[in-house]
Amino acid sequence: MIAPSSSFELIALRGGLGAVPGVRLAGVHAGIKPRKRDLALVVFDAPQSCASVVTTNEIKAAPLLVSAAHLRESRTMRALVCNSGCANACTGERGERDARATARQAATLLDLLPSQVIVASTGVIGVALPVDRVQRGLERAVAQLDSGAKAAFDAAEAIMTTDRVPKLCAYAFYHQDRKYVVGGIAKGSGMIAPNMATMLAFIATDFPVSSDALAHALRGANEESFNMISVDGDMSTNDAVYAFAPVILSLSKDDGAELPAAFVGALNAVCLDLAKAMVSDGEGATKRLEVRVTQARDVAQARAIARAIINSNLVKTALYGEDPNWGRIIAAAGAARAKLDPDRWSLFANGKPWVGVGGIELLSEAEAHRELEPETISVELRLGVGEAEATGWGCDLSRDYVRINANYRT
Amino acid sequence: MIAPSSSFELIALRGGLGAVPGVRLAGVHAGIKPRKRDLALVVFDAPQSCASVVTTNEIKAAPLLVSAAHLRESRTMRALVCNSGCANACTGERGERDARATARQAATLLDLLPSQVIVASTGVIGVALPVDRVQRGLERAVAQLDSGAKAAFDAAEAIMTTDRVPKLCAYAFYHQDRKYVVGGIAKGSGMIAPNMATMLAFIATDFPVSSDALAHALRGANEESFNMISVDGDMSTNDAVYAFAPVILSLSKDDGAELPAAFVGALNAVCLDLAKAMVSDGEGATKRLEVRVTQARDVAQARAIARAIINSNLVKTALYGEDPNWGRIIAAAGAARAKLDPDRWSLFANGKPWVGVGGIELLSEAEAHRELEPETISVELRLGVGEAEATGWGCDLSRDYVRINANYRT
Repeated sequence: MIAPSSSFELIALRGGLGAVPGVRLAGVHAGIKPRKRDLALVVFDAPQSCASVVTTNEIKAAPLLVSAAHLRESRTMRALVCNSGCANACTGERGERDARATARQAATLLDLLPSQVIVASTGVIGVALPVDRVQRGLERAVAQLDSGAKAAFDAAEAIMTTDRVPKLCAYAFYHQDRKYVVGGIAKGSGMIAPNMATMLAFIATDFPVSSDALAHALRGANEESFNMISVDGDMSTNDAVYAFAPVILSLSKDDGAELPAAFVGALNAVCLDLAKAMVSDGEGATKRLEVRVTQARDVAQARAIARAIINSNLVKTALYGEDPNWGRIIAAAGAARAKLDPDRWSLFANGKPWVGVGGIELLSEAEAHRELEPETISVELRLGVGEAEATGWGCDLSRDYVRINANYRT
Repeated sequence: MIAPSSSFELIALRGGLGAVPGVRLAGVHAGIKPRKRDLALVVFDAPQSCASVVTTNEIKAAPLLVSAAHLRESRTMRALVCNSGCANACTGERGERDARATARQAATLLDLLPSQVIVASTGVIGVALPVDRVQRGLERAVAQLDSGAKAAFDAAEAIMTTDRVPKLCAYAFYHQDRKYVVGGIAKGSGMIAPNMATMLAFIATDFPVSSDALAHALRGANEESFNMISVDGDMSTNDAVYAFAPVILSLSKDDGAELPAAFVGALNAVCLDLAKAMVSDGEGATKRLEVRVTQARDVAQARAIARAIINSNLVKTALYGEDPNWGRIIAAAGAARAKLDPDRWSLFANGKPWVGVGGIELLSEAEAHRELEPETISVELRLGVGEAEATGWGCDLSRDYVRINANYRT
């Protein structure tokens, strides 16, 4: 994978977070869920810069609040604990106590300060976290800490809820003749708002970065990846992306402008691959949709329209039914209220002109239907008003989506 | 049905629009759809004030643009034509020509000016209106014009798309010892955004009102009815509500403050009943959900949160599965970004305390499940920060929703 207009090369690696030197991790069964792995522990050999992007939901799960406090208290992090099976959200003061207890348990076992531990949770809202089970799970996890693909796979599995597959990704890059790695694990499926399944991503690198620079780089990567599969305003109570990098101190304010393109490219690639993996694993999804909005006035317009299309239940069901009902795509674009010019747009399916300016159909019904048959469909909406563009990723809405979500807890 | 804090009485009538004196109408098969009725014609004996609320979608169907031009040109209206089977949206200049042709055909047959005719369409986007068939249909409709329930039922049926039942509603009220009627017909199902099925409502009364006052009254009624089942920003290309009343001239600017409460109450009741009928007829819906948001800081906050809950796919699927997963309701409320205070809310199911302040469950899992078994479920979310409230209406998201919308055109 080569990032556009750059000369660096990224080398895809196996093992996600486990491919990053200085990272050890484990995924175990703590008993929060009946049988499956439900607790992941990630430990960093050296103190880490840590940056985060968290949900804009006004109801924030307890682990988010506790982790935010830890980030304020201790600027470097050493470990991450994430459980599935319980979101520890809407659990009041007890929830915060439980999240703090989790960090304390891990810190005691690893000989760290509690404030050096990030905690995260995913699962059912409104249920208390069984901290005694977390404690036993952490003991087991510490004993199993390891680097490499197997440990990363276990950890990625331990943070799954309705996910069908664990999500891991890693890329290596060279900087000044030294090889570095960016790797991550993630969970999330059926992500497109307003579905609000939790999405979590944990990313690490062995390339030293200051906290400020890491925060800038993560925000940029997030905008074009996780934010193009889920809409800011509609995130769940637990959504979070955390990035870790060996700490270097920056004496002045560091806006990341000095970061090598190869590092930024690798971080972007990891976020994008993990985001796409969530979409492909959409609850009950049978197809993946890539929506490119081009010839936009600016990136904000392109993003707003791409998201509106990706979000439309009617577009998603038409895709499931392979119904080339392009009017739904245009109606969704118009509903974005991003100043779509009704007289200038044109539509392409998998690169083929589909609907020309003025609503002229350029593919027959049968031809258009054929374009919707593949598992991955690419639609381009040209707005005809500028040169900016953005891409969003989504999936179809199937009967299985309803089945899965009607009985999530049973 | 009695409007709150008023002393007037409303008398429910059969026949919807057909119950309004001075209104004749018909619904015929014009051949736009294979077999079903697909063309409605409404004719007013006297010139009418006309007010409208139309979609905020940036892609507006041709009939909306033509009707808006007619409203500017001719301040009084005499007829309405609405077809189903073709939205005449995204049809470019030809679409506007066809919409104008429809108005001209009706005007010629009825000896009116074309600008005295409102036109509306619903159905598939991007398909040209077969104006020759509309012409033949209009000839048939003019011959069948009639008052009463049968004609109104035919007209309500002729504007249906995925609707399972025609939607009619009428109320009578007394003003200065005279009886007046407000009646309407509507179409729409699966209305809750972002589904964007078209919603249309046509409302008339024999109570004389100026255009300005009618516009004010319609806006108010719309805010608490159609706008609480569909969200402004996500309306389809064809959505419109038109209201008609025998014209009286107002010499000064008339803001409707002088309208009798009984008239306003009847108009509100008609809009609310038609809106609820759309929700009950939601595509594939098996349950209806009423969400009251109370103790809000202001009405805007209450409305935003009620809509967010009603709109959530996860709430809708949980409702379908009768899964008392209250966390999804709170997560949706938090995602509305309407400044929900996480420490003060409490939740009620069908009047019973469900979750107390701090996330304390007050119903057992089995008890809460039982509350979700009825066909109509009422949820109240108390925000604990004020005294304002709002109510939204929605339905569940079933597997049938996906089936219907995956194959809408086949």
